[in-house]
Amino acid sequence: MMKPYSEMKKEELITLKEKLEKQFEDVKGKGLNLDMSRGKPSKAQLDLSNGLMNVLTGNCDLVSSEGVDCRNYGVLDGIFEARKLLADMSEVPERSVLIYGNSSLNVMFDTVSRAMTHGFMGSTPWSKLKKVKFLCPVPGYDRHFAITEFFGIEMVNVPLLQTGPDMDIVEKLVSEDASIKGIWCVPKYSNPTGISYSDETVRRFAHLKPAAKDFRIFWDNAYSIHHLYEDKKDVVLEILNECIKADNPDIVIKFISTSKVSFPGSGIAALAASRGNLEDARRYMRFQTIGYDKLNQLRHVRFFEDMQGMHEHMKKHAEILRPKFEKVQEVLEKELGGLEIGTWTKPLGGYFISFDSLEGCAKAIVAKAKEAGLILTGAGATYPYGKDPRDSNIRIAPSFPTVEELELAAEIFVLSVKLVSVDKFLKG
Amino acid sequence: MMKPYSEMKKEELITLKEKLEKQFEDVKGKGLNLDMSRGKPSKAQLDLSNGLMNVLTGNCDLVSSEGVDCRNYGVLDGIFEARKLLADMSEVPERSVLIYGNSSLNVMFDTVSRAMTHGFMGSTPWSKLKKVKFLCPVPGYDRHFAITEFFGIEMVNVPLLQTGPDMDIVEKLVSEDASIKGIWCVPKYSNPTGISYSDETVRRFAHLKPAAKDFRIFWDNAYSIHHLYEDKKDVVLEILNECIKADNPDIVIKFISTSKVSFPGSGIAALAASRGNLEDARRYMRFQTIGYDKLNQLRHVRFFEDMQGMHEHMKKHAEILRPKFEKVQEVLEKELGGLEIGTWTKPLGGYFISFDSLEGCAKAIVAKAKEAGLILTGAGATYPYGKDPRDSNIRIAPSFPTVEELELAAEIFVLSVKLVSVDKFLKG
Repeated sequence: MMKPYSEMKKEELITLKEKLEKQFEDVKGKGLNLDMSRGKPSKAQLDLSNGLMNVLTGNCDLVSSEGVDCRNYGVLDGIFEARKLLADMSEVPERSVLIYGNSSLNVMFDTVSRAMTHGFMGSTPWSKLKKVKFLCPVPGYDRHFAITEFFGIEMVNVPLLQTGPDMDIVEKLVSEDASIKGIWCVPKYSNPTGISYSDETVRRFAHLKPAAKDFRIFWDNAYSIHHLYEDKKDVVLEILNECIKADNPDIVIKFISTSKVSFPGSGIAALAASRGNLEDARRYMRFQTIGYDKLNQLRHVRFFEDMQGMHEHMKKHAEILRPKFEKVQEVLEKELGGLEIGTWTKPLGGYFISFDSLEGCAKAIVAKAKEAGLILTGAGATYPYGKDPRDSNIRIAPSFPTVEELELAAEIFVLSVKLVSVDKFLKG
Repeated sequence: MMKPYSEMKKEELITLKEKLEKQFEDVKGKGLNLDMSRGKPSKAQLDLSNGLMNVLTGNCDLVSSEGVDCRNYGVLDGIFEARKLLADMSEVPERSVLIYGNSSLNVMFDTVSRAMTHGFMGSTPWSKLKKVKFLCPVPGYDRHFAITEFFGIEMVNVPLLQTGPDMDIVEKLVSEDASIKGIWCVPKYSNPTGISYSDETVRRFAHLKPAAKDFRIFWDNAYSIHHLYEDKKDVVLEILNECIKADNPDIVIKFISTSKVSFPGSGIAALAASRGNLEDARRYMRFQTIGYDKLNQLRHVRFFEDMQGMHEHMKKHAEILRPKFEKVQEVLEKELGGLEIGTWTKPLGGYFISFDSLEGCAKAIVAKAKEAGLILTGAGATYPYGKDPRDSNIRIAPSFPTVEELELAAEIFVLSVKLVSVDKFLKG
């Protein structure tokens, strides 16, 4: 039953294929429409934050702790209490934080765009340089890669290990090549593999000596408090403080938001960095806007109150997400365990399960699943330019469907994996 | 009493100066702290929109008319009903509108930034060109000029007449010089002069034949529904439709927001343009964000319901603003009428009164007023690079102070004007 496909004889494979095809036709006949493509919170998760809609009313005090009427213009940095809350979330002092609009992706895009037109802290604008490169730990987040590609920045793959990016390679490349200006990082519950950077990785980042003075680590702490288990949590060393200790304070820019804490698209985002980087960001902001939405900042502070409140809130998210991750893993284990046609991650937080098929099978699996009504993230999406050199990584996002839907989706997924893998052995 | 200063003898001027200085010392002694520097709504105006805080609750329907859960990710263009509302406000069809974040200034900044890094509709990115110029009707809005200056765009002054920018000059310059890529326009109740563009001006804009294919009219309709009088309203011809009729659909990009309708900084902003320009904007947006704040879009639609609701709301703003404009004008007329040391505008809408002093006096007047505790917009701010060649224009923003404060502020202002003007005649 659990015999590896590689040990099966041709006849066994043919018989198996016939059986699988029949099962697949049955599932297809159900006319399902399931989506495991994006890290999108479910309705039940959104309901957790409905109270956010009630904390501000027309009769309540809409003045910040520093006496600012949040309804009017002003306060470029964000209101004090919002800076404090997102600073706590980001594990840095309040003075190290600027509040932006509704999305940290937007802040990252702006930061790359700013470097293109104005450089960082007095450096040559990147648009004036012949060549600009970014290091991209892979597999990684497609929207990061899309931003750098959009600005014509050349992307260089770096393997993402269990401890974070391969730092031997990172150190070598950034010290040798001054056209390398940045690296995309998701340090905790990484998208999609779910790994968290080790203390050694963080320290090596803090001690980097890049050839480019304007090299920046783009530290997207998207899942900083997004644990699945109360008793098993990854902890990542706070990088800004490590950089300061390493006398390297300007090398990192941290990004954070409440998108998957409160409402995606209606949250608040922040940038955390050294004094020099913040001054640089402010110089730009001053022309870019009169100020971000302070009422939404106030709304978030009044709703969560403090970090304790936010952690309590995240426990409720975990209670909804945990059974979904476990359901997918249960089906994967039950159906694929021992077959040696795929491996997958068992993360302690974040939004994804990362699946690696046999080489050259990912695209075909995603296409197969689609036939039966299951939408997966496009194969290759987790690599720059959409090109997975081994065509094996598939990102599974179990957050949006219900547990019942997920069970069906996982069934379609494993059937697709089996069918494509059988074909590979039959052809090979 | 109302004798022009120019007709006064030296002794008369000396006696007058002594009298004015005494009055000024008296006012100074009051230790006032008044601000007429920015077009900022008053507390009473903000209170008009407090209901906006109550329309969405955790128990109400947070789904858009097209069935989108506004709490979750998605819908790059903005929800249908918000596009409809801002399209109506902008007098264009719903399909011509994209909704952005909390500020139209931010959308304008982004649009210039986009042209710098990616060009418009396939043109060479402006950052790759040796020289990029913008036409700036003067006097104009300081934050517009600040954006173009920040991106290293050379600004060329064009006189703003009673009918709009001097179109003879605009037509000549844009047809001759392909490095001229844009023009800043506030077509209705212009900042600061309050004039509105004539039909002929709009038609001539629509028929412009610029040497640069990527020339764009930046049409900032910031005061489109911001009338002061019910029975006297400026009407400006809708430009996008005129451009389409002139077979020139891509030449204009319109900007609009609810900043001075609902809450400044917590409103919604939009861009309106041709299909080609919208596709171009979307190509950028797709990388820039997953989507803007749909809950705030829904909040605005539920509060205003439709254009009729918005117009009713603007009448209430007018009732608060009108007495303020009239108070300032009353003091100016009473104290400066007949003296021939200054002229000022009597706009039918918008946020400003534009004052022109004798040549070479504006900086000194602003400095003088500051001595007595009145903050005015910096002299020169209404010109590119902060350089008013005649040093005569001063922007007065009467919206924020109360009528009582305004009376005091206006008294300080006229005293400052008189003192500086007397000095001019005594020196000259």
